[in-house]
Amino acid sequence: MPTFTEMWRDLTPIGRHTPTNGYRRYAWTGADTDCRAWFREQTLARGLRYETDRNGNQWAWLGDPADGDAVVTGSHLDSVPDGGAFDGPLGVVSALAALDGLRARGARPTRPLGIANFSDEEGARFGLACVGSRLSAGRLTREQAYALTDADGVTLPEAMEAAGQDPTDLGPDPERLARIGAFVELHVEQGRALDLGGHPVGIASAIWPHGRWRFDFAGEANHAGTTRIADRRDPMLSYAETVLAARREAELTGALATFGKVAVEPGGVNAIPSLVRGWLDARAADQETLDTVVAAIRRAAEERARRDGVDLAVVRESFTPVVEFEHALRDELNRILGGAVPVLGTGAGHDAGILSASVPTAMIFVRNPTGVSHSPAESATEDDCLAGVHALTDVLEGLACR
Amino acid sequence: MPTFTEMWRDLTPIGRHTPTNGYRRYAWTGADTDCRAWFREQTLARGLRYETDRNGNQWAWLGDPADGDAVVTGSHLDSVPDGGAFDGPLGVVSALAALDGLRARGARPTRPLGIANFSDEEGARFGLACVGSRLSAGRLTREQAYALTDADGVTLPEAMEAAGQDPTDLGPDPERLARIGAFVELHVEQGRALDLGGHPVGIASAIWPHGRWRFDFAGEANHAGTTRIADRRDPMLSYAETVLAARREAELTGALATFGKVAVEPGGVNAIPSLVRGWLDARAADQETLDTVVAAIRRAAEERARRDGVDLAVVRESFTPVVEFEHALRDELNRILGGAVPVLGTGAGHDAGILSASVPTAMIFVRNPTGVSHSPAESATEDDCLAGVHALTDVLEGLACR
Repeated sequence: MPTFTEMWRDLTPIGRHTPTNGYRRYAWTGADTDCRAWFREQTLARGLRYETDRNGNQWAWLGDPADGDAVVTGSHLDSVPDGGAFDGPLGVVSALAALDGLRARGARPTRPLGIANFSDEEGARFGLACVGSRLSAGRLTREQAYALTDADGVTLPEAMEAAGQDPTDLGPDPERLARIGAFVELHVEQGRALDLGGHPVGIASAIWPHGRWRFDFAGEANHAGTTRIADRRDPMLSYAETVLAARREAELTGALATFGKVAVEPGGVNAIPSLVRGWLDARAADQETLDTVVAAIRRAAEERARRDGVDLAVVRESFTPVVEFEHALRDELNRILGGAVPVLGTGAGHDAGILSASVPTAMIFVRNPTGVSHSPAESATEDDCLAGVHALTDVLEGLACR
Repeated sequence: MPTFTEMWRDLTPIGRHTPTNGYRRYAWTGADTDCRAWFREQTLARGLRYETDRNGNQWAWLGDPADGDAVVTGSHLDSVPDGGAFDGPLGVVSALAALDGLRARGARPTRPLGIANFSDEEGARFGLACVGSRLSAGRLTREQAYALTDADGVTLPEAMEAAGQDPTDLGPDPERLARIGAFVELHVEQGRALDLGGHPVGIASAIWPHGRWRFDFAGEANHAGTTRIADRRDPMLSYAETVLAARREAELTGALATFGKVAVEPGGVNAIPSLVRGWLDARAADQETLDTVVAAIRRAAEERARRDGVDLAVVRESFTPVVEFEHALRDELNRILGGAVPVLGTGAGHDAGILSASVPTAMIFVRNPTGVSHSPAESATEDDCLAGVHALTDVLEGLACR
């Protein structure tokens, strides 16, 4: 079997955008399809039973999942725009390597063992994260999924069909999830807590509640060179004020609030915009803080829009409540890993967070010395990656080979 | 010959984007090519001598321009993104209608009479306005024109070639311009001065100095859900502060300053941007005010970028100094039109402004009741359009048929 390092080398070129050195592995594009084909090959090479579920999530099984109480590990292979190499793929490659490690140790699983690659985790293309796991967990309806559209007007079912995946049966998959007794997702850390503490590996405590809000500021398009300041209804001003308000509120409350995407119509250098659409990503350690922050940003946006003669509509595009990972499973992981492993909260959403409502779920984090994620600067040393594989192997052995 | 109204009806469907009701007649696209073909047909139907110059500008002649001291009128047919119907086309259609009017009066030109359609006036595609007239006037070099690239990476010469226009000889055209004794551009007003004063038609005094500056704010891409506020280098904040500074400085000085276009990398909802690129359009009645405004905006941008840990580069992408239209020609227009015509300054750039350095140049404005331009709300009543044609006919008769 190819080693972790060899598998990593195989995956590296797929979907890499050389001008930025970042990855563009968007759901159901050619790069994503190549990643999925690679996953399938790897599982078949290991003699696992391969299957794709109704939502395009890929599964590989050692033992028969119909026996129930399965232990599953895995993550995703798609990326944000110009993302790093580790967010997602580290969990999938580590899962395959941990299975090899288990076999090399001669460990005999007494529970079915699964490896999963969830479809469309990042939501880079259709604007909603964790589409594959949301659908399976009944957190996204077929109708909602069918209404998802990318920037070119391609719908999710059209994109799936173009990639050879039948979208007819998109929807909840309770039987499949009911067979899973534990899901463990390994992921690169997306902050510097492990690095600052000098630990290669950690365990997740909780995922902060988080969501995306779209702010549509509608003004009046006009000539930038001839329209008097007093006659303008310029939505770019309302947007700018809102961006600054988001930072201010985040600083005041210890929350996170970010505008990372904006779309302008008509978008000409010499045209006052008719529409500025900005997306707010907001997260906080608890629901009350998050509500307070979003309400304050919204209030600032409304006030400025009124001054600018601009109409504002705010749409909550997605939302995930706080996820406390199961304490029993978390404690068991900690015991298996020797008891001295740091336990961290995180602001990032994950398939593990979505599944945790249906399945006992835990996460393992691997140190990221830059602390940077969703960027080519995202990093993990080979030693730390192998420490992660080792920890995951221990966990699979401890959970499935009792 | 088709009347003004019939010609207008012919042109209306070309390049109209039905969802917005605006026009998308970008230089050297299919819609632009259709407009150019229409212009050629109209001139040939009138028995004029048709030619395209080295820079893709279209000309039609009554009489032989080699005789010199020609009187030329015209404008452009391309548009900004989702622009109005009048900005450009009104001047071209009025030119054709005025020639018909001259003939109907039985007026006999004693000077060569030309009608021009200048290529790529709006700069919507390649980011630089008045490319055709700039090249002819020696205000843009062949090398600079060859380096112009659209959003899809298509260069100007590639786009011209694809539209059937040979770009080999792009460059100054002093012989052609030397033959012109007067250029008069009719244009829809891009403000409400004529409407407020109750005049259907006016004459231009000057074009304000104006330019475009690109502000590149470079920070560090990172995960919006996991990166502590203190660890961020978010260029969206610096951009937002700069947008607000531009408005503030414009208000303080009576200038115009607008950010109507912004590009974000990577542009993911959950990614702190690595790069935010904003374009400033700034104009003022005099050079000193413009310099003051741009310097103040730049200072505000630099200060905020420093606070955000963001690098800033400012590039002046284009600049046009103040244009005082020739007083003698302006006074003659006023005399021809009966002496009671309002004389207005304008913040908008025009081919007439570019040519004014080489050729005695004047402009006629037609009332725009909304005052809106570069938007589908741009307007002019049929009566006012015909008043414009009448005024232009008078001017051509007065100048060319003495």
